[in-house]
Amino acid sequence: MLEDGKAVMLLKTDARDKIWIDAFAQAMPELEVRLWPDMGDPSEINCALLWGPPPELFDALDNLEVIFSIGAGVDSLLTCPTLPTHLPIVRMVEPELTAGMVEFCLFHVLRFHRLMPQLETNRIARHWEELTQAPASEITVGVMGLGVLGMALARQLTALRYQVIGYRRGPGEVDGLEVFHGEAQLEAFMRRSEILVALMPSTQETRGLINSRTLSWLPPTAYVINAGRGDLVNERDLVKALDEGSLAGAALDVFETEPLPRDSVLWTHAKVYMTPHVASITHPPTACRYIAEAIDDFRQGKPWPNLVEPGRGY
Amino acid sequence: MLEDGKAVMLLKTDARDKIWIDAFAQAMPELEVRLWPDMGDPSEINCALLWGPPPELFDALDNLEVIFSIGAGVDSLLTCPTLPTHLPIVRMVEPELTAGMVEFCLFHVLRFHRLMPQLETNRIARHWEELTQAPASEITVGVMGLGVLGMALARQLTALRYQVIGYRRGPGEVDGLEVFHGEAQLEAFMRRSEILVALMPSTQETRGLINSRTLSWLPPTAYVINAGRGDLVNERDLVKALDEGSLAGAALDVFETEPLPRDSVLWTHAKVYMTPHVASITHPPTACRYIAEAIDDFRQGKPWPNLVEPGRGY
Repeated sequence: MLEDGKAVMLLKTDARDKIWIDAFAQAMPELEVRLWPDMGDPSEINCALLWGPPPELFDALDNLEVIFSIGAGVDSLLTCPTLPTHLPIVRMVEPELTAGMVEFCLFHVLRFHRLMPQLETNRIARHWEELTQAPASEITVGVMGLGVLGMALARQLTALRYQVIGYRRGPGEVDGLEVFHGEAQLEAFMRRSEILVALMPSTQETRGLINSRTLSWLPPTAYVINAGRGDLVNERDLVKALDEGSLAGAALDVFETEPLPRDSVLWTHAKVYMTPHVASITHPPTACRYIAEAIDDFRQGKPWPNLVEPGRGY
Repeated sequence: MLEDGKAVMLLKTDARDKIWIDAFAQAMPELEVRLWPDMGDPSEINCALLWGPPPELFDALDNLEVIFSIGAGVDSLLTCPTLPTHLPIVRMVEPELTAGMVEFCLFHVLRFHRLMPQLETNRIARHWEELTQAPASEITVGVMGLGVLGMALARQLTALRYQVIGYRRGPGEVDGLEVFHGEAQLEAFMRRSEILVALMPSTQETRGLINSRTLSWLPPTAYVINAGRGDLVNERDLVKALDEGSLAGAALDVFETEPLPRDSVLWTHAKVYMTPHVASITHPPTACRYIAEAIDDFRQGKPWPNLVEPGRGY
């Protein structure tokens, strides 16, 4: 039992095995880490930290008590057919992951707001023109998804004096932020968003949410930033809007298929700034401290933090 | 006399005449504005708001009492041979100018920190590689020049958790910031600066300050951002350092000659992000409110704000 006995952690990483093992050695020297697929006696394993578990993984883990996700998004966990959904599933929330996402989205908001795509075009033509730039206070940024990442971004954008509005699944007030929610308010939200930042999880409700119909609601010189999940955006519809000129530009870090297929037009589309899913990754040292604290707290009778609700998909 | 009489403002703008005139009409409806070169009776003019005054301008202005600079940098004023240096010269300090500079520098710091130049190269090659990125807390940004703009940038970078160090001309403590000063401490400052942001004024002391000798002090993968004045940087030395690989990249908004000559290698150098002096410009509505307040305060016996010291060059 994790509660009063030894913690044995199954680790399946996102290709940074050694860094994770070192980070656990630092944060939880008492922890026994077993690196997948070398599980030893699977019945001894009572916790797991996972990225993209193989389909049958959980069948062998009879005494598992808690599952930690390596990423902030848990779609790769929730689609695993053997996932024991009755167990606590703890989302990764750690300061470096949040900071990285804020930096990435901020870079792209600044790039679009400060007309860098136009300046890059002018540069190639050796054309010197001091474009007139709007103050941040005249730009409305719409943040879709108001979890830990979306809220951190909204706060930072507000500090830089942007007009920030938010969109989320269900109702609820957020201090200092105008919030739209649900399907009924999506159009009103998009009509106001001059720069739209998608930070929603991939769920049945969000898949393909950014499509020809919803893109048509954006102001005509709008920009889209997707740093959430690739399937939030219908890529064909997005390219169509860019090519028709109804959308001014896009920054895409995530894609319907990853790695992005070599023949995708998104690699080199003149109006697309494409990056290979680098917006933010979990930082093992701070992540292991988060896990250590969660297990400590659990042993003292406190609830697990940041629990995933498999029913709603995140 | 400005003190107890009518204010007559000579206006020579940076090519935005109408916007400035409208902004004064809003902020100071009682002000009489005369747009250079239509000065009317020059002896009636008691204040002036100027950008790049022509050499003889001040000879005609016998009753001038105060000079306002349109820009934050006053080098174009101070090199005017007829400038009456005994008069108060008020530097432009207004929130939108500061905000624009912070945005611009922040964009470039994020771009370098988040390895966007490398990702842009990979994109052209259709090469998907999730580069490992350092947390902001492991990056040291050196801000050269700790006036209103430099300090605002330092505060914002600190909020994003960068390690920030500052460099200035003379000694003096700054709360929460490690400050280097004077020639003797320049090497120590540069050796620490992984991203160097030049925000100094153009003075006898700063001209050519960034040259082969001082660039050699930077860490080998350092980046330089110049949003101050073009002559802070010896362009030939900078290009040499980039070509030799001792400097990783540069973002240049200002140049030894502006507009940048069409044959300059800086237009299209692979390691240079060039922009045409757009980092930040004065926003007439807030600038005119600043001037209105300064004149009001003066009439109530208060000193002029943000006075230039011609002797030190800024």
